[in-house]
This record gives sequence, structure tokens and C-alpha cells, in this order.
Amino acid sequence: MAARNQDTFDKAKVYAINIMASPGAGKTSLILKTLEALHGRLRLGVIEGDLATSIDTDKAIAAGLPAVQINTGGECHLDAVMLSNALPSLPLSELDLVIVENVGNLVCPANFKIGTHMNVLIASIPEGDDKPYKYPGMYRGVQALLVNKIDLLPYVPFNMDYFRQGVEILNPGLVTFPISAKTGEGMEAWADWLVARVKNA
Amino acid sequence: MAARNQDTFDKAKVYAINIMASPGAGKTSLILKTLEALHGRLRLGVIEGDLATSIDTDKAIAAGLPAVQINTGGECHLDAVMLSNALPSLPLSELDLVIVENVGNLVCPANFKIGTHMNVLIASIPEGDDKPYKYPGMYRGVQALLVNKIDLLPYVPFNMDYFRQGVEILNPGLVTFPISAKTGEGMEAWADWLVARVKNA
Repeated sequence: MAARNQDTFDKAKVYAINIMASPGAGKTSLILKTLEALHGRLRLGVIEGDLATSIDTDKAIAAGLPAVQINTGGECHLDAVMLSNALPSLPLSELDLVIVENVGNLVCPANFKIGTHMNVLIASIPEGDDKPYKYPGMYRGVQALLVNKIDLLPYVPFNMDYFRQGVEILNPGLVTFPISAKTGEGMEAWADWLVARVKNA
Repeated sequence: MAARNQDTFDKAKVYAINIMASPGAGKTSLILKTLEALHGRLRLGVIEGDLATSIDTDKAIAAGLPAVQINTGGECHLDAVMLSNALPSLPLSELDLVIVENVGNLVCPANFKIGTHMNVLIASIPEGDDKPYKYPGMYRGVQALLVNKIDLLPYVPFNMDYFRQGVEILNPGLVTFPISAKTGEGMEAWADWLVARVKNA
């Protein structure tokens, strides 16, 4: 089913990424700030996964994005069937990039292929620097890492060298962008990289 | 098996609490600061649940606590069997209170009884104010709520009224302690309440 989803994306010439993170790491904010930083270079759509509510989809729609909500009703991750059911609600032929926001969770989503082309993990400074060590499966399975909320670095204990060392052990050479979705810092570099990745896909 | 664990605690006259939270909300810091705030009023032991590593147990042992690590090896929550296997490693007859630190996750741990007397949830200010709405199962199933990292309130968007309203809908009258495990703010009130709860159990 994951392969069928990827086939659907490919046929529509849409690049799809699966964004994973713990609760409150800033997935939705990242998507909205990515839209701004893209400056119209890619036509973006989003699929929002949550246990409950349509809070995130409402935000995306308010920002002018084609968006569809998946409520898992208790499941701790999205799966390929849920994604497959959501895809017809997006105007794929009018999009270049679809961002799928997975359920906030550093464990379950790592184990499920859903049919996107790339997995992106958002780490968050206030979560602490030991997360790669504690959630190795998640850090192993991604192709890009965003380290969000760097504006909070002065206010929380976070040893960036220790963090990076943990990442390097699990996923050597992982492309990493320190960002702040709040201040916008680092967003241009991430958006430029994303555009290149999608154009070269 | 959960009932058997609780029976083991009861026979040893030990009160047991199950602490749940997302990754990096401050579970281990809370435990270490609770130890300080107890001022010797209760003899504390801890059981640390993680996918991997013994980072948290090492911290607890360094603080002078009897501590045992459970590595779930990928499971997103502790279960009663894991707890049962860990219990013989703690000197229960010399303890009044055991704090079980569950895997960092706002979904799975809500669905598993492990045999403790009380469930405690730690929310974290930088996670954002919409978490009760998005993770209702977790907020419904706890008997106390700690709102940690209140020292970060000046630096992040967080509407406390919106947060509290979401909690109230799911769990009316839930005992709530705003705290900062970093600055120690609110820790005495939490520790006093905990002592009373254990003594009256």
C-alpha cells in the first residue's frame, strides 16, 4: 500500500515528505514557515495526522494551503492505508510538494512506511540533547534533520556537541538544519535545499 | 499482572506512581528535583523506562536513589510484565514511594495499566498549549498534572487559559501544579501534596 501511495505521487509528479517529531516540536509551525520561505517556488499541500481535532489543518487552510486532516482515533502513527484514503482529497495535479505531518511521537512512526519519498525529523532544543541516544530508531530512519527552537538555546541546558555526536553515530552525515520556526532563522537554507531536492527528484 | 504488581507494592507498603510525558518534557529532572523537595520525608526509589540506554538510571543512581532501568527495545510504553520483572531489583521494604518513569510518549502509555496507584502527566510549556486537545486519552487518564518549564513562559507562545480549558473538558478538577524543575519553582507544593497523598494512602 505504501508503494501504491508513492506511485500515486510519482504519477502526479508530486514529491512527498513525511515529517515526524515529538508532540510540540513544531511540525505545523515548520510547515507554515516553509510555505513562506518557499516564496512560491513550489506548490505545497499538506496532510495533517493527529489522534484528534483538526487544529493543524485549520491553521494550514487559514494559510491558504490545500490541506486534509487524518484523525487516527488513538493510533500513535499514520499508516499507508490512512494516507491512501486521504490522497483523493488533495488536488495532486496542481501540487509539486506534499508534506505529511505524522502524529507527534518519537517511537511508532519510525516503524511504518507510508509511501513518501523522504522522512524528515524535527528535533526541538527544549526536549534536551539526549534524544538521539534514547530514540535511536527514529534518528536512524530519516534523510534530513531540523533542529528547531534554536532561539531557546540561551534558556535551556543543551549541549550541541553531545547531541550531534549522538546523531552522527546513528545516521552518519545526516543533513541537518538548525532553525527557529518562530524567528525564521535557518528557514531559507532549509527551503533552498528542499527546492533543490524536489527539482532533482 | 498489573493487579499483581499493585499487590506487591501494597504488601511492601510502597506507594507507586507512573509518570508519563512526551520526550524531553522533564520526567527525569522532575524525579531528581522531587527527591530534593521531599527533604527525606519519603524514601524514594525509581524505575526508568526507555527504548534504549541507561542515561536516566545513571542520573538517578548518581543522585543516591535506588534505581532500575527497563529498556523496552522499541516498545513505545511500559507494560505490567516489564514492571514485574524489574521490581525484584528494588529494595521495596526500605522504600515508601516508587516513581516509574514511562517511555516518553503521549499516546501508547495511556492504554496500559502497569499496577501503580496513580498516573501523573508532565506537560511542558514549550510543547504548546494545544496538547490536551490533541492527546485527549493521555489527559483523561491521569490523577495529577505537572506543567513544567514555566520559566520558559516569557519566550514561547503559550495561552494558559486555552490550555487549562482543554484540560478541564477532559479531566474536570484535575490537580495541577505549575512547576519548573530547572529553577525549583512550584516543587515544594508538589512535594507536600505527594507526601500527604502517600501518607494517607
